[in-house]
Amino acid sequence: MTGVYIALEGGDGAGKTTVAARLVELLEEKGDTVVAVREPGGTALGEEIRRLLLHSSDMTAWSEALLFAAQRSQLAAEVIGPALGRGEVVIADRSYYSSLAYQGGGRALDPQLVRLINEAALEGVIPDLVVVLTIDPAEALARQADPDRIGRQGAKFQEAVARVYRELARSEPDRVRLIEMGDDPDDVARAIFAMIEERRLG
Amino acid sequence: MTGVYIALEGGDGAGKTTVAARLVELLEEKGDTVVAVREPGGTALGEEIRRLLLHSSDMTAWSEALLFAAQRSQLAAEVIGPALGRGEVVIADRSYYSSLAYQGGGRALDPQLVRLINEAALEGVIPDLVVVLTIDPAEALARQADPDRIGRQGAKFQEAVARVYRELARSEPDRVRLIEMGDDPDDVARAIFAMIEERRLG
Repeated sequence: MTGVYIALEGGDGAGKTTVAARLVELLEEKGDTVVAVREPGGTALGEEIRRLLLHSSDMTAWSEALLFAAQRSQLAAEVIGPALGRGEVVIADRSYYSSLAYQGGGRALDPQLVRLINEAALEGVIPDLVVVLTIDPAEALARQADPDRIGRQGAKFQEAVARVYRELARSEPDRVRLIEMGDDPDDVARAIFAMIEERRLG
Repeated sequence: MTGVYIALEGGDGAGKTTVAARLVELLEEKGDTVVAVREPGGTALGEEIRRLLLHSSDMTAWSEALLFAAQRSQLAAEVIGPALGRGEVVIADRSYYSSLAYQGGGRALDPQLVRLINEAALEGVIPDLVVVLTIDPAEALARQADPDRIGRQGAKFQEAVARVYRELARSEPDRVRLIEMGDDPDDVARAIFAMIEERRLG
């Protein structure tokens, strides 16, 4: 028995956290053991790195990309990989697809190198399904009461992030799916739940 | 006027710190403005990362490699690059050649990928001269009163580190030089000082 690793992605304020919580409930009602994780963080080392990433006053784009990849390597080895080995379902609030979008797109670092670094660091522990929640950028901004260092980057940055997500959905249609956030997060959670079921039966 | 960037390398306990201090004195006596840095560290972000690297209880080899590269990117952008731009001499206690030896050799990560990551993160701010201080491993071990997490890795690890340094000196003879530590660190500092002078005249 092998588990399933589902990553929720999207711009800041898209509603990932709400959808993730509802999705966990749906899976648990069905009898799955679910491990919910968020990035950056989820391990002792990762939470320390999270603090640096969200609250440091200044860092280079590469420092940022490498710190994200460092916490991700630890989370994969310590939490996600073992859970998958036990046949559990992992629901992740962000994954290395965030780095492809934010550091590759928003920060304009070499996207192939960002991918190469992350895939090396993850040693095969990569999402089976990446669901990108899309939302009108202005609405997303309005939802963020207190944006962190990266959330404060402005409209041009957020547009670059959204563009990379759309490109990834086109270039990796089996893995990456866009879902538009409507008025009810429950609808979105149910749609993702159906995708997971389809994947397990298929 | 462009500065000169000299990195001191070697196994733990080789005597880099003593030699660096003496070398700074020699250069300042001659009238140079010298900036001395050490890795990991040297910036606000870098000192936080240093603490994680040297004292965390557990991390993957990739987390370690990426944290080293992250602090290095910040140090290059914030300290080393600007000093070189002012025509100063930078004496660095370690550089990305440490990652080639420790994470590439000691941790057995893909050495070409470790190099690629670091050279991207440094954006061209790389040492003009890398001096590797060599010493009998048993003696180096005896000199370390209180080794950190990486210093405690044992003889096989240290031998892999030493082997990579030797290979680098063979494959990049213009940049990487081995110097055997004798009884007097002053002799070694004077030898490095002569190499710097030769390089500036040449």
